Amino acid sequence: MHTQDAPPRTRIPGPAVPRRPARLAPIPLDAAKPDPASLLGGWQELNATATIPHCVDNVERTSAIENFRRLAAAGEDGPQGTFKGPWFADSDLYKTLEAIGWEAGRSGTGRWADLLTELADLLERAQAPDGYLNTYVQGTGREPFTDLEWTHELYCAGHLIQAAVALHRGGGDERFLAIARRVADLIVRELGEDGRPLIDGHPEIETALVELYRETGEESYLRAAELQIERRGHRSLGAGRFGSQYFQDHLPVREATEAIGHSVRQLYLAAGVTDVYLENGDETLLEAMERLWDSAFGTKMYITGGHGSRHRDEAYGDPYELPPDRAYAETCASIAALQWCWRMLLATGKARYAEEMERALLNAIAASMDHTGTAFFYSNPLQLRTGHDGSHEDAPSERLPWYNCACCPPNLARLLASAGAYTATSGPDGLQLHLLTAGTFTGRNMSAAVETGYPWDGDVLVTVSGAGELAVRVPSWAEGATATVTGGRVLAEPVPGDYLRVACDDGATVRLTLPMTPRLVRADERVDAVRGCAAVLRGPIVYCVEQADLPEGVLVEQLRLDTAAPITEERTPGDLTPVRLRLSGTIQPLGTELYGPYGQAPAARTPITFTAIPYHAWANRGPGAMRVWIPTA
Amino acid sequence: MHTQDAPPRTRIPGPAVPRRPARLAPIPLDAAKPDPASLLGGWQELNATATIPHCVDNVERTSAIENFRRLAAAGEDGPQGTFKGPWFADSDLYKTLEAIGWEAGRSGTGRWADLLTELADLLERAQAPDGYLNTYVQGTGREPFTDLEWTHELYCAGHLIQAAVALHRGGGDERFLAIARRVADLIVRELGEDGRPLIDGHPEIETALVELYRETGEESYLRAAELQIERRGHRSLGAGRFGSQYFQDHLPVREATEAIGHSVRQLYLAAGVTDVYLENGDETLLEAMERLWDSAFGTKMYITGGHGSRHRDEAYGDPYELPPDRAYAETCASIAALQWCWRMLLATGKARYAEEMERALLNAIAASMDHTGTAFFYSNPLQLRTGHDGSHEDAPSERLPWYNCACCPPNLARLLASAGAYTATSGPDGLQLHLLTAGTFTGRNMSAAVETGYPWDGDVLVTVSGAGELAVRVPSWAEGATATVTGGRVLAEPVPGDYLRVACDDGATVRLTLPMTPRLVRADERVDAVRGCAAVLRGPIVYCVEQADLPEGVLVEQLRLDTAAPITEERTPGDLTPVRLRLSGTIQPLGTELYGPYGQAPAARTPITFTAIPYHAWANRGPGAMRVWIPTA
Repeated sequence: MHTQDAPPRTRIPGPAVPRRPARLAPIPLDAAKPDPASLLGGWQELNATATIPHCVDNVERTSAIENFRRLAAAGEDGPQGTFKGPWFADSDLYKTLEAIGWEAGRSGTGRWADLLTELADLLERAQAPDGYLNTYVQGTGREPFTDLEWTHELYCAGHLIQAAVALHRGGGDERFLAIARRVADLIVRELGEDGRPLIDGHPEIETALVELYRETGEESYLRAAELQIERRGHRSLGAGRFGSQYFQDHLPVREATEAIGHSVRQLYLAAGVTDVYLENGDETLLEAMERLWDSAFGTKMYITGGHGSRHRDEAYGDPYELPPDRAYAETCASIAALQWCWRMLLATGKARYAEEMERALLNAIAASMDHTGTAFFYSNPLQLRTGHDGSHEDAPSERLPWYNCACCPPNLARLLASAGAYTATSGPDGLQLHLLTAGTFTGRNMSAAVETGYPWDGDVLVTVSGAGELAVRVPSWAEGATATVTGGRVLAEPVPGDYLRVACDDGATVRLTLPMTPRLVRADERVDAVRGCAAVLRGPIVYCVEQADLPEGVLVEQLRLDTAAPITEERTPGDLTPVRLRLSGTIQPLGTELYGPYGQAPAARTPITFTAIPYHAWANRGPGAMRVWIPTA
Repeated sequence: MHTQDAPPRTRIPGPAVPRRPARLAPIPLDAAKPDPASLLGGWQELNATATIPHCVDNVERTSAIENFRRLAAAGEDGPQGTFKGPWFADSDLYKTLEAIGWEAGRSGTGRWADLLTELADLLERAQAPDGYLNTYVQGTGREPFTDLEWTHELYCAGHLIQAAVALHRGGGDERFLAIARRVADLIVRELGEDGRPLIDGHPEIETALVELYRETGEESYLRAAELQIERRGHRSLGAGRFGSQYFQDHLPVREATEAIGHSVRQLYLAAGVTDVYLENGDETLLEAMERLWDSAFGTKMYITGGHGSRHRDEAYGDPYELPPDRAYAETCASIAALQWCWRMLLATGKARYAEEMERALLNAIAASMDHTGTAFFYSNPLQLRTGHDGSHEDAPSERLPWYNCACCPPNLARLLASAGAYTATSGPDGLQLHLLTAGTFTGRNMSAAVETGYPWDGDVLVTVSGAGELAVRVPSWAEGATATVTGGRVLAEPVPGDYLRVACDDGATVRLTLPMTPRLVRADERVDAVRGCAAVLRGPIVYCVEQADLPEGVLVEQLRLDTAAPITEERTPGDLTPVRLRLSGTIQPLGTELYGPYGQAPAARTPITFTAIPYHAWANRGPGAMRVWIPTA
């Protein structure tokens, strides 16, 4: 619908809004309004009504808040009682606060005003006169900044800073920003150019300091972030239990060419380095990040957008080491990957970064939350076997309400609350739509109303207000995509993996039609773990087969996919799985010998048709076997 | 050759000689004499001249001995200096001592007499008046038996007992036996029926106490072992970091049906339970062990005889979770598996147990040692990728001289020194040959001189002295095996997976001919990680392809095996790889897309013939890619 009104005024910056002009500029958080009926918009509503409250309950239940009360109430004799939870418990609270900040910006809610007041009081009282604030270090009588390979002090400080930035942007809160600035000022003084040359075992402070610089204009914060990344890679943290790559301290950031070590740490660091590039323009940093990105996304990423294939050290494996069953694919890693891609997108404007954001968001990240928004996966495997032992927290058979190491649930909350900001940007020439979803998206000079059932349907109708260039991302799988334009001129046809570009008059409509035929995908031959298998995708959605959909007596492990047979669709709009797929194949009889002669005639197979559901919806019907990669012969 | 002499008198018991008559009886250690020119005999010589001295050097270098000196020299103020190494460092020394004990029995060497005297002095001085002896607990001021889930106190005590038994059997040493008895007596008093109902997080004491009972006849040791296994499975050790299955405390031993948790602990426990069965005859224990064995060897064992597929907790995975690249397959696990199988063989007389002993010995265990006998793998993967990061001790690219956790090298030394005893048994009716190797093997009433180049050649010529029933194991892969007998009567023809049985007159000859044609093997369809691949075996030997054998520019990852093409042999007798295989196939061009459309026409492949070498000989020519399972299409 087209009106002559000026675009609405918008004002709330979302995550990672560069001060220095980048190739693309984010649009404000409240300038992106995914339709609540869309997949993304629905998740955002669920996050607001269920996930954030669940996180608040759990940071209370697990004593993450109590640790602050304890410090705040400390008298002359120091705090009473004992610190509770893991040493990085503060960050669970901070990520929850960040979610509240973005949610205030997104929806304008004041639901948590009392909590924010209480927490600001607590943090102010708990904060040391010099600005130091960490309930584990202060609460256990440790010396600040003496054991940074393990204590996560700067990691927690970074999450405090990010929370303060989000609360300031989203709700105008000044108190948390002041608390965070005192922490950052301490870091500048103590660990700055004239201070101790320390880094943290877990990157996170880098991106946080850049964000605080963006929010305050205080250049010493940017300089502190630069120092943090320049100091990395000189093995100053030692080898620890898992080697210096675990700490991301194995090679200077400009020399590292392989994504390696703890995957979340690798990806947070990469986001921070890219943030520094966005502000200081050091092209050697961007070149290094492009190389590293090719390694991570070209040789070590799961088809779901998961990262990290090893449980032992939560780490990337060797290139092409991508087992579906023991995929670690930590939820936080996919969130970090999305955040890194966002920064690379701003820096370069290249569609591939947006495509990987979409892959992660609609698959690995979406899978980490159940349909109630209150149970979560930490690890996101692509296969669960019949007979799986789900007793380990890192490989449960179903989503858990919370974790001893609870980094993921509040990380998901802060991501979803801010996710609208990742959908579109406003470049020098107009508006760019990166994550296709129904809703309205407003840039500097023009606004787009998007009507679509994507990712379930391929028709995307964009109605433009204001004149300018509209860019709509065409996914790389969308061979045969077409565009119909009224009131505009096509500058670039819809080529898969690039942007459809249209010079729009005010009121123009652009209809992009993406082919949504289900398709089979294979992995590189070197991904040994899924040899002889195909994955089924439809649009950006990865599908899986789940035991709950199979007849009695047939195991997921017995399915063999007929790759030549047509795939049909079953539609149940509004359902958790609005589009299910029906596949054809056979049932492989189970063998009895672990090892036997090669080439024996296979036992006769029975034909079967079976259902595949979106991977992100798995494990919502009780525990059971599942697989994304289906054997084809 | 046939003589009328009586069989030589023999006397030195080897490992695990039941007091209660079992289905089969071990022959003495010095009644089994593998030919030094045979594969096994050669390893035993290498062990004597290189590995045991290397272990002795390293328990000195790493302070495992120094920890005892420190305790022995302690005055009124307690020990000076600090304990060094991991909390289970004592066991490295004890396993080295056990190796020396068996080696004395095997070869009669007195090479380490001075060391034994020094160590007996040290241990006597370090041992507390009540019998307690553990340099970690005593040397760090801890209280004995208060933290058994982690301290390995009974584990170390078990290895001391096993060392003492070996030194007593092999060299007649009484001092270590007395030290060990004081430890065992303390365990009986403190942890016995009227004592504290404790168990150790790492099983090992069970089998040790049974062995000490066998050596001394002291029934309280057997009773203590029974108590240890009855106390398991009631979760008294808590969950720890990895769950109660890690401690083997998740289910009572009679109820557990799945091999699970830390694989070495699982297998040592199973050996101990079987030992208790062998002495007390409780059939419910044997039934439980048969069930557990089917789980371990039928659903969770690598084709090399490796056990344990997870690095995180050194554990068994789910059934059929057997990744070749991230195989943990700890050397100690295969040694423990062999020891368990030996006990099951004695209990039942079934060939399958001997077959799995052979598989482990000639493949996973043999691979753990280099050709110099002084470098070792702790983990024994079946695949190493191009570009592998070998910086982690648990997944190095080459064998290492020693490990921070050095359980494996001295375990290998004690196994090889005693390995002769595992080759044959003496049942009520005669002599049974289980591990086919050249040498002489003497039972109660008859002796066998075996001439063979096995496992490289399939001809096994046995010449018997004394009359009785000779049983020769026919491997399950030996379809078409034939036997020719002179001076005897065939009681059972050579059926694969069973025993050729011949009623022999004195001087009889039995020629068993095994088909040694290279063969291709496939894994159960549920072993997803090697789908579409074949392994190449010849006789009991698993083969692999190694980068060192490929032409410049061709990667191991590019090889595709033509399963219809003939396999030829290249013989270089006396070499590290006396029989190499030449395989035919093609070179798969490398792709450029991690994920792409399924079913695209494959790029044209170039034919290639390539070499496979015995898996156990890999990584003797520098680091490089390797794989056992070769893609077939």
